[in-house]
Amino acid sequence: MKKTYKDDGVALHTDLYQINMTETYWEDQMHDRKAVFELYFRKLPFGNGFAVFAGLERLIEYLENFRFTEGDIEYLREELGYGADFLEYLQTVRFTGTVRAMREGELVFGNEPILQIEAPLAEAQLIETALLNIVNYQTLIATKAVRIKQVAGDDTLMEFGTRRAHEMDAAIWGTRAAYVAGFDATSNVRAGKIFGIPVSGTHAHAMVQAYMDEYTAFKKYARRHKDCVFLVDTYDTLHGIKTAIKVAKELGNAINFVGIRLDSGDLAYLSKEARRMLDQAGYTETKVIASNDLDEYTIMNLKAQGARIDAWGIGTKLITAYDQPALGAVYKLVAIENEQGKMIDTIKISSNPEKVTTPGLKKLYRIVNRINQRAEGDYIAMKDEVPQAEEKLKMFHPVHTFISKFVTNFEARSLHKDIFVDGRLVYECPTLEHIREFVKENMGLLWEEYKRTSNPEEYPVDLSQKCWDNKMESIMKVKTRIRAAE
Amino acid sequence: MKKTYKDDGVALHTDLYQINMTETYWEDQMHDRKAVFELYFRKLPFGNGFAVFAGLERLIEYLENFRFTEGDIEYLREELGYGADFLEYLQTVRFTGTVRAMREGELVFGNEPILQIEAPLAEAQLIETALLNIVNYQTLIATKAVRIKQVAGDDTLMEFGTRRAHEMDAAIWGTRAAYVAGFDATSNVRAGKIFGIPVSGTHAHAMVQAYMDEYTAFKKYARRHKDCVFLVDTYDTLHGIKTAIKVAKELGNAINFVGIRLDSGDLAYLSKEARRMLDQAGYTETKVIASNDLDEYTIMNLKAQGARIDAWGIGTKLITAYDQPALGAVYKLVAIENEQGKMIDTIKISSNPEKVTTPGLKKLYRIVNRINQRAEGDYIAMKDEVPQAEEKLKMFHPVHTFISKFVTNFEARSLHKDIFVDGRLVYECPTLEHIREFVKENMGLLWEEYKRTSNPEEYPVDLSQKCWDNKMESIMKVKTRIRAAE
Repeated sequence: MKKTYKDDGVALHTDLYQINMTETYWEDQMHDRKAVFELYFRKLPFGNGFAVFAGLERLIEYLENFRFTEGDIEYLREELGYGADFLEYLQTVRFTGTVRAMREGELVFGNEPILQIEAPLAEAQLIETALLNIVNYQTLIATKAVRIKQVAGDDTLMEFGTRRAHEMDAAIWGTRAAYVAGFDATSNVRAGKIFGIPVSGTHAHAMVQAYMDEYTAFKKYARRHKDCVFLVDTYDTLHGIKTAIKVAKELGNAINFVGIRLDSGDLAYLSKEARRMLDQAGYTETKVIASNDLDEYTIMNLKAQGARIDAWGIGTKLITAYDQPALGAVYKLVAIENEQGKMIDTIKISSNPEKVTTPGLKKLYRIVNRINQRAEGDYIAMKDEVPQAEEKLKMFHPVHTFISKFVTNFEARSLHKDIFVDGRLVYECPTLEHIREFVKENMGLLWEEYKRTSNPEEYPVDLSQKCWDNKMESIMKVKTRIRAAE
Repeated sequence: MKKTYKDDGVALHTDLYQINMTETYWEDQMHDRKAVFELYFRKLPFGNGFAVFAGLERLIEYLENFRFTEGDIEYLREELGYGADFLEYLQTVRFTGTVRAMREGELVFGNEPILQIEAPLAEAQLIETALLNIVNYQTLIATKAVRIKQVAGDDTLMEFGTRRAHEMDAAIWGTRAAYVAGFDATSNVRAGKIFGIPVSGTHAHAMVQAYMDEYTAFKKYARRHKDCVFLVDTYDTLHGIKTAIKVAKELGNAINFVGIRLDSGDLAYLSKEARRMLDQAGYTETKVIASNDLDEYTIMNLKAQGARIDAWGIGTKLITAYDQPALGAVYKLVAIENEQGKMIDTIKISSNPEKVTTPGLKKLYRIVNRINQRAEGDYIAMKDEVPQAEEKLKMFHPVHTFISKFVTNFEARSLHKDIFVDGRLVYECPTLEHIREFVKENMGLLWEEYKRTSNPEEYPVDLSQKCWDNKMESIMKVKTRIRAAE
């Protein structure tokens, strides 16, 4: 029987080819050449007009702990047959590079770098898989959550999805992403504990079943819990609402009759009936809470039908990003040091124009109109350009280049912060509350046309002329090289 | 600022209402009453004819480690305000119940219990959320993987999805589920290390970009790696194939030219061209490996178009179960001890007939025809029934009861194994290789009509007459009780 190994580190949470490439670079003494990789996605998820970046705190922790354990090295030697010389090197690898990133809660669009990694080639390569794993999921969920928040407005939003999440990490980090994007609470107690997110929940159908009837169950629950939300649909919803009111009346001031929860049936009809019954009984402050496969589409429809729901429990559809369960962020090499120590731009060509990479070390700006304080678009320039100093900026579409505009009286805000410099963490993560505020602030910069949950306008993410020219030149060089080799 | 707590245990990986219900039971001295919960899903995912159960090993580990840490207790006291008396009790809670479960790799259908938990009410309640979190995801992915395996036949299948998985746990446990269902390898090295799954991978586009051209990159790679798979689509695929062949010819016996990999473009056309070029050059054994958003539908289409692909790398669509990213397993109370120590059946009613639970402690059998060794259906009987001893079994549809058949000359195989008995682990997990074999064996029991990936026939999961009568009686009792209370 094969030996198995303890799960004692994160460095092997990577694709095998990263290790094989590292070995090739190391054999060739290329491993320490400085390389620049950019992490970005091409297409916004859910047809949304923007995404909300999340995952930074988790990836900082990952990079700080990046090292191959003795168990990792033993596995690579014994089971995969890597040579002792290479493994000796691998054991010394730490992350010593520079990371520039958007802040968590920043709004992000297609084809702009969320992260820039400037690091020894081998290190930058080894961390690719885990960075994508983290950023893709958390950004996906934060974006799904902000869509739900847009539709729910000031209603209370609770994340209830742990049981349908893709294993444990997804439950925890997904609920954190939802909170970043404006959710108010989670049912996951572990997430409450480790992140300080408010937790929420009362009782399930099982408790009613255990006591065989609702009247007994509600009364028993109320003995220990002053704030009561009663789940009313174990047997018959309208009957359940009556029972909840009856119990509340009997207990009077001994409890706060906070709400009733509906978890099945027609939520529009039942919520209106519940509201009517509660109001009639004098419980005008008692809330109607709804759950059952909800998402932004159903919430919008229920509201359009006049449903009287004050708080929403959102499970499966959020935590799995049900209608589009993957964000396609990629990680591409854009420049590498040559033998002479000079940085050379690199490109990946494709027959699909959206898949051609944009070479070189670049900077990313949000162009904010000084008059109305709204964003005019994002602007990607080469490292040595200074758009802040320009009077007038020409912005043009990076695929349909004839679509262009000139912008004046603007502020060019740099979107990247230094996170690590030469392996040293220089960034202090803000609190979750600050990140939530930051999301709200960022939303304020966007025109409404980009914030619609269906068919929003396309927010401009444009290249500087220099950046565009550089890209065209790189394409030509590759084509010439390929023709020469034919 | 709020205090934050270390992530040092799994017991709080639960929904808050489980703790509130536990508190209610404890206050009422109900917490130690024996309860029976069943875990099952109602609807098969992906329109498949069956699902593959996975997750047992992980949930055993969870149950063995179930305890509230000092940090958990401190959090519950300081932040959530639970009383010291209740927390004192909570600190003593371990899992002391009995678990009966299907074995990993068992084929499972809608509305039949995958797990039965017979435990003190509080314990059974506290573990619900995590059990569902684990079983829902792993079973979903094993089922998606078996669909892909059905279509790919004997081709090699590699799981490549870590970068798109829903955070780290999903990558690891998802790839294990895929391996259980018949995948051959994973790119995730950590999964290789901790589970002993074969790992697979060579190099990425970045390596070609780092060396600026394919010829140099392939040669450098080959210096250290005897088995070579060259990725040929960084700039121009057909040119890349030529370059791979050129390098292979130059290096001769110094390498094994194992394959070329296509990761973009039209895989049908390019694989046929690749095959032709490789064959012409004498590399008839060199494989064509394809990846790029593949799933069972695309593979089937590519095969129908005569694509010449020998091995498939499957990423996003598998690891996220893209076309249906959640399995809806639920966990329902079916019986509970009363004050006199007698087990009483419980039921949850719904206006949707599929959502009405089936009360009582039951046993689950697979009815196998002794003549052709195929499964006739699954049969759910009350605990005290002995279908093995029957000459003739009446099986009828649990919703459309007029659909029925009689079965003779059958074997009634019990599908549940004892996993924990009174908190003691009595089950030894088989190796992954044994679980893979078990899946194949189980597939052999099923008629082809249930195995089609589109529009399979519905496999019968039937109730015994006694089980059905008991359910009807329970429904009547609840209705009578509600009418009496009106």
